[in-house]
Parts: sequence; C-alpha cells; structure tokens
Amino acid sequence: MDKSEKKETYNKEALMRETIRLATENVERGGGPFGAIIADKKGQIVATGVNQVAVNNDPTAHAEIEAIQKAAAELKTFNLSGYDIYASCEPCPMCLGAIYWAHIDRLFYANTKEDAQKAGFDDSFIYKEMALEPSNRRLFSERMLGEEAFKTFENWISKKDKTIY
Amino acid sequence: MDKSEKKETYNKEALMRETIRLATENVERGGGPFGAIIADKKGQIVATGVNQVAVNNDPTAHAEIEAIQKAAAELKTFNLSGYDIYASCEPCPMCLGAIYWAHIDRLFYANTKEDAQKAGFDDSFIYKEMALEPSNRRLFSERMLGEEAFKTFENWISKKDKTIY
Repeated sequence: MDKSEKKETYNKEALMRETIRLATENVERGGGPFGAIIADKKGQIVATGVNQVAVNNDPTAHAEIEAIQKAAAELKTFNLSGYDIYASCEPCPMCLGAIYWAHIDRLFYANTKEDAQKAGFDDSFIYKEMALEPSNRRLFSERMLGEEAFKTFENWISKKDKTIY
Repeated sequence: MDKSEKKETYNKEALMRETIRLATENVERGGGPFGAIIADKKGQIVATGVNQVAVNNDPTAHAEIEAIQKAAAELKTFNLSGYDIYASCEPCPMCLGAIYWAHIDRLFYANTKEDAQKAGFDDSFIYKEMALEPSNRRLFSERMLGEEAFKTFENWISKKDKTIY
C-alpha cells in the first residue's frame, strides 16, 4: 500500500475528541453543534459528518446521518456492521433509527439528550412522542387504506430475488 | 401562471393511492416496498420518495427521508410546517424523527409497523429499543467525555447569530 493511503489509527478518546472538535468547528461555520465519526475496529476514520440542517435547508442533515451516508457510499454497502459511531451528542430518534438500520456495532456519545435540551434542541420531546401510540402524539396521525396497502407487502413477501436489509 | 406549471390537486384518498402505487412500482424496480408523498393543504404534490436502501447502498434511503429532503430542497426551507406527509407504511423511528424535525403538520399512513414486521422489516424492534435507556438496548452504547463536549453547547448557547430549527 502506498504510504499516503495508510490511514492513521486513533483510540476511543482521540476519536471522540475529534468528533467534539468537528462539532465546535461547525458552530463557527454557522452549522449546528453536532459532529459524528464512523470508525473501524482499528480506530481508522471511515467518514465524518456535521449538522447542516440550517445551512443546507435539510431537516435530515444531522451529523450521524451524514456520516452514515458517507460511510455506506465509501464502503459500498448499506450494512455497517463491524463499524462504530462516535457522536458528540446522544443521537436523536432519527439518527438512532439510522444507526439500527445501518447495523452499526457500537455507539459512543458525549453530550446527552438532556444536555441537548439545555441547548434548545427537541431531542427529549421527540423521544417522548416516539413512545406514545400515534393517536396520543402531538403530531396528527391517521391510518387509511390499510388493506389496499398490504397488497404491496404481499408482492414483496412473494418476490424471490429481493435484498433483505 | 403557465398552464403547464399548474399542479393537479388530489384528495386524501387519491394521495394515499398514489403513495401505495409508488411503493408497489418500486418493488418491481428492485427497491423496498415503501413510498411517501409530501403534499400541501390544497392536495398538490410537492415531493415523492421511495425506499432505495438496497439499490443505492444507503441505509437512510427510506421513502419518507427522500420525500422530506426533496420537499425541503424544492421549498428552500428546513421547516415543512403547513405540509402533510403520506406514507404507504407507518414511519419507522428514523422517519418519524425526520417528520418531527421537519415540523410537518399531519401524517397519513396505510400499513402499520406490525404489517412491516410481517413483511420482514425491523420497525417494531427499533421502536422497542428506542423506549429503553441506552444501557438496556441491544446496541452497545457508552457515554464518554461529556464535560469536554458540553463546551460546544456552551459556545452554541452564547452565539448570537444562530438559526434555531
């Protein structure tokens, strides 16, 4: 391997300090105070992400989502098992969901969702809503056309050449 | 307005049938059995999305995430209040989180998370994990360097020219 391609390896603390540094630097650039890193088990950085919700006009542009999308693109797989994620703050439900779908092995985080609340972010509120039945949530939710839609799942179930994720 | 730019308006049932149609068509194309539409209060379609996890190697490429990203880009805002989302299946925690962050007004869905489980998807499992403390989840989680990270939030709190989302 060309020496220039050899990636540095970091221990857990160094990876988290780098994650926090990304978050701090992002605030200075006008982004939100969040950073994330995906690393392999040797401590090599695969991808990084920062919060770009306001700068990109994208409500889904959280640090963890960006890092997961970049790592999956880099590794050409939707399955990131074998990799760890470092997040400068406990992931919100959207990002935690993404971590599960990506099958990431381990989550390391620094600030908590209560810290995020002190900084003005809705993470704790969304966690509480998540645990309620749809009809009890602040978000208006209505189910409709369930029987018609289940036919799509029947097509999926009977499909032979499908990729399970 | 040029007549060709005038968008059609649909009622709730028509919007959901179109969402289900997108999901069904996506299965035929090799994608997952999920579709989503963002519509305004007149019933005009602003953006659509389908599940492209396996075809794009992106674990975050769910129908609702794609529709929200496209609607936010089209409308040039991270705040989709005043808009509704139609989802062919009850959103998973990742997508429900995105719906909250986007401040979408109303959610309409057809299949339930229990239906999704019958079709082999992890939505119900992820909802259960979400409700647990990090230490009780199947996902290994560890908090570290909390005090160092909180300084990033202090920088954010004291910043004057910031955009709250």
